[in-house]
Amino acid sequence: MTNTASQPLFETVAFIGMGLIGSSMARRIKRDGLANKITCAVRSEATRDRVLELGIADEAYCDIKQAVGDADLVMVCAPVGANEAIGAQLTGALKKGAIVSDVGSVKQSVIRDIAPHLDEGVHFVPGHPLAGTEHSGPDSGFPELFEERWCILTPIPGENEAAIAKVKALWEACGMYVECMDADHHDRILGITSHLPHLIAYTIVGTATDLEDALRQEVIKFSATGFRDFTRIAASDPTMWRDVFLNNREAVLDVLGRFQEDLMALQRAIRWGEGDKLFELFSRTREIRRGIVDAGQYFANFSAEGE
Amino acid sequence: MTNTASQPLFETVAFIGMGLIGSSMARRIKRDGLANKITCAVRSEATRDRVLELGIADEAYCDIKQAVGDADLVMVCAPVGANEAIGAQLTGALKKGAIVSDVGSVKQSVIRDIAPHLDEGVHFVPGHPLAGTEHSGPDSGFPELFEERWCILTPIPGENEAAIAKVKALWEACGMYVECMDADHHDRILGITSHLPHLIAYTIVGTATDLEDALRQEVIKFSATGFRDFTRIAASDPTMWRDVFLNNREAVLDVLGRFQEDLMALQRAIRWGEGDKLFELFSRTREIRRGIVDAGQYFANFSAEGE
Ligand SMILES: NC(=O)c1ccc[n+]([C@@H]2O[C@H](COP(=O)([O-])OP(=O)(O)OC[C@H]3O[C@@H](n4cnc5c(N)ncnc54)[C@H](OP(=O)(O)O)[C@@H]3O)[C@@H](O)[C@H]2O)c1
Ligand SMILES: NC(=O)c1ccc[n+]([C@@H]2O[C@H](COP(=O)([O-])OP(=O)(O)OC[C@H]3O[C@@H](n4cnc5c(N)ncnc54)[C@H](OP(=O)(O)O)[C@@H]3O)[C@@H](O)[C@H]2O)c1
Repeated sequence: MTNTASQPLFETVAFIGMGLIGSSMARRIKRDGLANKITCAVRSEATRDRVLELGIADEAYCDIKQAVGDADLVMVCAPVGANEAIGAQLTGALKKGAIVSDVGSVKQSVIRDIAPHLDEGVHFVPGHPLAGTEHSGPDSGFPELFEERWCILTPIPGENEAAIAKVKALWEACGMYVECMDADHHDRILGITSHLPHLIAYTIVGTATDLEDALRQEVIKFSATGFRDFTRIAASDPTMWRDVFLNNREAVLDVLGRFQEDLMALQRAIRWGEGDKLFELFSRTREIRRGIVDAGQYFANFSAEGE
Repeated sequence: MTNTASQPLFETVAFIGMGLIGSSMARRIKRDGLANKITCAVRSEATRDRVLELGIADEAYCDIKQAVGDADLVMVCAPVGANEAIGAQLTGALKKGAIVSDVGSVKQSVIRDIAPHLDEGVHFVPGHPLAGTEHSGPDSGFPELFEERWCILTPIPGENEAAIAKVKALWEACGMYVECMDADHHDRILGITSHLPHLIAYTIVGTATDLEDALRQEVIKFSATGFRDFTRIAASDPTMWRDVFLNNREAVLDVLGRFQEDLMALQRAIRWGEGDKLFELFSRTREIRRGIVDAGQYFANFSAEGE
């Protein structure tokens, strides 16, 4: 999918944060002419300089207010733990009619942390593109990241329909399928499909790092599927994921509790040699895989997927 | 790597079991002329007929004794739970000087179940190719499966060196790197790198299958990395994996216990909002990934990997 409109969708888009996700969007917007101008605010001078060097923004600042004054769309693309501070900077800084959106992996906390800071006449359309990799920073982005993946928008009931439609059109122009749902529903689904798997992968790789040295070296040397896949997931950005777990605590703890019960049951079945129970579960899980393959969520190119 | 020897390595190789692993070896042996004749024994008539149809064995039987009488090498490639029964069939059925080897994912149990049945003058060289996919059956094999992966041999101390060298040469001709170690050490390493990850993947996908219907459908629809990778692992053969867990019980329960302690600690850190602890672990796990990428155990083609 590419933008075939002769008009760009926005005059100026301002990014707050220019890592994997922000810089992938910026690259896509530039490549396809989806906006006339891109500005951004990042945290460090090193990233600011790198963004300008890469030519993925027309202007880059370490100060949020400087970046957002002219923007028709402000895209918050920093780790979700930064949202409260970012929100505070947006008060009084935006044009009337500007849209604020984001890409954070947790949606209730984004609404909690940003919405209260926005002035009347500013629209807020939280979103989450289900695409990513285990890499981070402005160099890791690429314009095809979002192609044929889902984007979930979680607008607050009553939000301006035209604003929602504009954000939707932008993601579609980036190649995504877009669906709207409640923020708490989003957080529950992602708690299962993304947050718990990341937590498990971090744990299992952590368990391996605690092994005595010689054994750990051999685990690395002979790492087979299963473990190797887990290490890729567990190589994801520590700041981003710390923030995800701290901000989606309830949903993660809930599904983690269920997972632990199920794991205990399996442990018991192994201890007591109950092969039938193992076989029954191992057969049941195949079905879900079929569902996913059928749903077309299976891609050969695993390296370009994420979160 | 291909066999550049002008001589085949064996006159006759007999496979017991012709699924993913057996049929991949057979295809490789045929393609590269590594043996003059391939026979096999499988369980069902359907598989026997299919093997002959595919032309991956010269003779196929449902009776083990018929398949192995002429063999210089007998390769046991059935789920490890079948070993005791298979071993019993081998008594008195083999030529003097014949070598018995296998590909089972657990090695202490294979030695326990097969070695006592072998006659004097028959050599036993247990092995485990660290290569596989989530597919099974004779149609799923392909000759390149083993290329540039590790094979671990676990010969019993004192075993005939020439027999070990011949099995090693065969795996090398299949494209593998070969290393020898004790069976209990193998089982401990694989418990961490392969068996625990599979157990976890089965559990997490099982937890998802227990969700109420509507939520499960959405989990499938929006399955992101992490979960999607887990569903692939959890689509592996139920019989094979039941047998692995029942036969590597001690090593699996030991590493599972450590994993659960670590997971509890993380759960606690999330509940109490201890971001520093999360950040510290998430940073530590990145190192292991680097080790694996450096060790060259990282392949773009994830679909051709396994267990
Ligand atoms: N990675 C994924 O797979 C993925 C997928 C979907 C959604 N997400 C979400 O997307 C967001 C960004 O993730 P990412 O992977 O793009 O992260 P990233 O590559 O680590 O980049 C983060 C960016 O945010 C900036 N930043 C950090 N703290 C800031 C602050 N306090 N104020 C302003 N800017 C700040 C960083 O600037 P400096 O470089 O100067 O520190 C950097 O440019 C997160 O909310 C994440 O949950 C990620
Ligand atoms: N899959 C992997 O990723 C992988 C990797 C490395 C090692 N391994 C090990 O390799 C072995 C085989 O795995 P696989 O994936 O190739 O299995 P598979 O595709 O399921 O094939 C199993 C084969 O064994 C035969 N068989 C089953 N029970 C038997 C019995 N009681 N007597 C004789 N033959 C019997 C089956 O015949 P029917 O079709 O007639 O039932 C079938 O031909 C297992 O020990 C496994 O631990 C697997």
